[in-house]
Amino acid sequence: MASSGGKKRILILGGGFAGVYTAMYLGKLMTAAERANIEVTIVSNENYIVFQPFLPEVISGTIETLHCITPIRRMAKHAQLYTRLIEEIDIEKKTVRLAPEYVPKPIVLKYDHLVVGLGTKLNYDLVPGMREHAIPFKYLGDALRLRNQAVGVLEEAAIEKDPEERKRLLTFIVGGGGFSGVECIAELNDFLTCAIRAYPGIRREEIRCVLLQSADRILPELGESLAIYAQEILEGRGVEIQLNVRLKAVSGDGAIVVDKATKESVVIPSRTIVTTVPSAPHDLVTSLPCELDRGRIVVTENLDVPNHPGLWAVGDCAAVPQVDGITSPPTAQHALRQAKTCAHNILATIRGTKMKRFGFTGLGKLASLGRMSAVAEVFGFKMKGIVAWVFWRTVYLSKFPGFDRQIRIGIDWLLDLLLPRDITQVRIFQHEAIIQEHFHAGEKIFDQGDYGDKLYSVVKGEAEIIVNGKCVATIGEGQVFGEIALVSDQPRSAAVVAKVDTDVISVSRPAFKQLATHLPGVRATVEGIMRSRGVDTSALDSSNDTPQEGESHG
Amino acid sequence: MASSGGKKRILILGGGFAGVYTAMYLGKLMTAAERANIEVTIVSNENYIVFQPFLPEVISGTIETLHCITPIRRMAKHAQLYTRLIEEIDIEKKTVRLAPEYVPKPIVLKYDHLVVGLGTKLNYDLVPGMREHAIPFKYLGDALRLRNQAVGVLEEAAIEKDPEERKRLLTFIVGGGGFSGVECIAELNDFLTCAIRAYPGIRREEIRCVLLQSADRILPELGESLAIYAQEILEGRGVEIQLNVRLKAVSGDGAIVVDKATKESVVIPSRTIVTTVPSAPHDLVTSLPCELDRGRIVVTENLDVPNHPGLWAVGDCAAVPQVDGITSPPTAQHALRQAKTCAHNILATIRGTKMKRFGFTGLGKLASLGRMSAVAEVFGFKMKGIVAWVFWRTVYLSKFPGFDRQIRIGIDWLLDLLLPRDITQVRIFQHEAIIQEHFHAGEKIFDQGDYGDKLYSVVKGEAEIIVNGKCVATIGEGQVFGEIALVSDQPRSAAVVAKVDTDVISVSRPAFKQLATHLPGVRATVEGIMRSRGVDTSALDSSNDTPQEGESHG
Repeated sequence: MASSGGKKRILILGGGFAGVYTAMYLGKLMTAAERANIEVTIVSNENYIVFQPFLPEVISGTIETLHCITPIRRMAKHAQLYTRLIEEIDIEKKTVRLAPEYVPKPIVLKYDHLVVGLGTKLNYDLVPGMREHAIPFKYLGDALRLRNQAVGVLEEAAIEKDPEERKRLLTFIVGGGGFSGVECIAELNDFLTCAIRAYPGIRREEIRCVLLQSADRILPELGESLAIYAQEILEGRGVEIQLNVRLKAVSGDGAIVVDKATKESVVIPSRTIVTTVPSAPHDLVTSLPCELDRGRIVVTENLDVPNHPGLWAVGDCAAVPQVDGITSPPTAQHALRQAKTCAHNILATIRGTKMKRFGFTGLGKLASLGRMSAVAEVFGFKMKGIVAWVFWRTVYLSKFPGFDRQIRIGIDWLLDLLLPRDITQVRIFQHEAIIQEHFHAGEKIFDQGDYGDKLYSVVKGEAEIIVNGKCVATIGEGQVFGEIALVSDQPRSAAVVAKVDTDVISVSRPAFKQLATHLPGVRATVEGIMRSRGVDTSALDSSNDTPQEGESHG
Repeated sequence: MASSGGKKRILILGGGFAGVYTAMYLGKLMTAAERANIEVTIVSNENYIVFQPFLPEVISGTIETLHCITPIRRMAKHAQLYTRLIEEIDIEKKTVRLAPEYVPKPIVLKYDHLVVGLGTKLNYDLVPGMREHAIPFKYLGDALRLRNQAVGVLEEAAIEKDPEERKRLLTFIVGGGGFSGVECIAELNDFLTCAIRAYPGIRREEIRCVLLQSADRILPELGESLAIYAQEILEGRGVEIQLNVRLKAVSGDGAIVVDKATKESVVIPSRTIVTTVPSAPHDLVTSLPCELDRGRIVVTENLDVPNHPGLWAVGDCAAVPQVDGITSPPTAQHALRQAKTCAHNILATIRGTKMKRFGFTGLGKLASLGRMSAVAEVFGFKMKGIVAWVFWRTVYLSKFPGFDRQIRIGIDWLLDLLLPRDITQVRIFQHEAIIQEHFHAGEKIFDQGDYGDKLYSVVKGEAEIIVNGKCVATIGEGQVFGEIALVSDQPRSAAVVAKVDTDVISVSRPAFKQLATHLPGVRATVEGIMRSRGVDTSALDSSNDTPQEGESHG
């Protein structure tokens, strides 16, 4: 419980620009007396704020990983920070419940004013297999994952003899031709171009970077001439841009892409599919009993929620009316100004003074195209090429929160001009023990003779067991397969192919062995299935190989 | 299969100093004609080499994460690199089998000369609970994990009201008073001292850094006067050094430490226990049919293995006789010289020329004590304080492989003098779904009223179910508990306490829900257990909450 002692408690949910800047402006605007009587608290998943414009440069290594983030504590020094997940908002009781961390007891915070700045979540539901197999591009962890993935497939391609698999490894797909997708493919393409110098066996022509866009041009946020310029720059650097196409499905082996006009679909084999998916409202936002406009909380031009005194919303999760009549777009520059207005108005409410209206309508738009090129539209002026690129770097560096980080990024940029790109692959992302996977109709789940690394259970769809080219059985929902090779340590005795689009749950070998040893039901089930197939089950008694992560240094 | 075409194939196992420098020296020593006829291949878990002396500085953030590693490809440009795990070495057939990656088919490499440079693995078996709850300190991922853990407990302590839990969060234990342990506690202590400036609620006196050493002084590798100096410096900076103690057991709540003289044991409550555990031979090394000396492969002074022509061993996994009669210690300076001798002798064997004997006996020893202090013993001379510290930095920077990295580290050191320490916590380490946990006799596994986050199964030991202070049942090996709160989404209806030292397997809530939904046996087992306890099982039908990692931005 947050102690109060007669203090006013302002609780801010969300550690993005909107939330953290609201706390920062509150700190600036409060008098010394108010600081003693008003408690400002932020709840955030992470203890840092991500500066999104620099995220693509983390892929290429132009900026060091930690330099595109700033600790929230250094920005909002007077505020208290809870680095926790939020479980529930109770508007009636004016409480927020946080998930437990070390000690399995939740924390409940009380508030007088609640600022909701929760942003949006990724919308995976539109495309089958996207959640399971695509890399999103929103958080710092995503950029790191993508960078390691890119190096990882280069390492694999360098030793892969099969031309088809080699092509699959060297194909990189980014879905979405807006700012985020364009900056992502530009940096990824730049990085690969530089990195392959360390891989003598891989030629530049083998690298295929594909940008998928559903509209008839990229960068719909900008004027057409700049978009065409950007397209020419990217294509000149080797990026393949597919317009008027839609991502239909993603699996571990590639993406299915549909031409919007002809409705024809093509499979692009790839091990690396990035999605800058459209966003969906945050679950906590939809749980609130207030009016939503396309998933965003309806607020007045004062940033308060009508009929809910003490409730405020800022940033991407708020539908903020602008003086020009349109709703504020979900950008950092708008979030920042909303935060300022919101901080002022909360204090005005406490003080009983006059509130201010949100009066910002945007300064301009900028998109980086990778090395030494960018496009920009500022106060109606259009810029492109190296001028826009210098402008891009100047503007964003000056906007970056934290003087120490500005120096570090400046030095990163300088060193990037002088030193080679880094190609280390830091594999700290564990493969999860139990995951869901998606397979297209006709896709091989595993092949006869393969190494048996997983146990599968069909969630949705149907699969065929094929021995020496002949279908010997069909597996439907709720049925288990793949256990024989796992238990016997022999290669797969059959192939399994998805008959229709199929979702499966897979359990890794070590997780399965632990479960079979320690959960009696698992063992009985698998033994039953194996006996029904006439297989010896004595191998189930073999030792329990606990995963021993990071132990061999071979 | 590695293609040969009459070429001589030299295969090097291990991406540490020994292996990579062997490849590098082979590249330097081969003539142009030989380069065309000799194929050099390295197999390594990672595509980079870790420069161990700088690993402690990754904890404190003095050096950027990626700067203490160098890509192997940039060091050994002519060699082929397989970034894979090794599954089997077959000395008879002269083949090495590698684990599969994307495609579930293993790779088999043939060789004419095999250089084993696999190093050692961590020896967790000595202390119960160490594998499950202690953070090792050997690889890059370990340093990152420790840094994030340190920031994470500061974040928790900043909002924790319970004084006992607060103390547990702010206690940091490092086991082992050799080089590695001393450098680790020194950097950790420095980091915490700087970092807490951003946590106004935490006082310096609350931070407790404990170094455990089983001998009667730290740094047994150095002379006594230097060790005493080091001890004074560390203690002056607030490190608590416990001598003549042994780590007896580790759990999620703390460490049990035994006084070697009195045999009395004390529990030190802590959330952060680091181990610089003694090493054990690599499993692949023990699988080889050749003579081992305390787990190390016996080689001649030419680095070849007697009676196995074409088999060589270098680095920490080899017992290399020195001209002074002792066996080479496991340090980088020795590995490097062994690599040079080994490369020369492999080529001599191929050329039919004379082999060279390994003639190095060591230059000196250096240990950093954190900010501006170190101890060193070089050619018999002793150094300490800032002189030794400047010497330490100069020597190691000059030894660091890669000119670009040397520049980057130099700049890191410069900026560290000017800018504040970073306190961002990058939480990319997923909690594993299924893990083993250790509990001391008498330790609470969970409490009545706790949030139900896991299902447990007893692997070894015994636990008591306690309702309102009274033991209502005892759970033994192979029995499952903790399912009720998991299924009902209600708080724990009972406490469970380890009766003796107990190991359990725990399954996380999302993993359990997936298993219960898709593996029929799990569901039946849990339903059976619940019915036997008279609990309603209908809640098992509730929705399958798939883990949706990274989605909320609260």
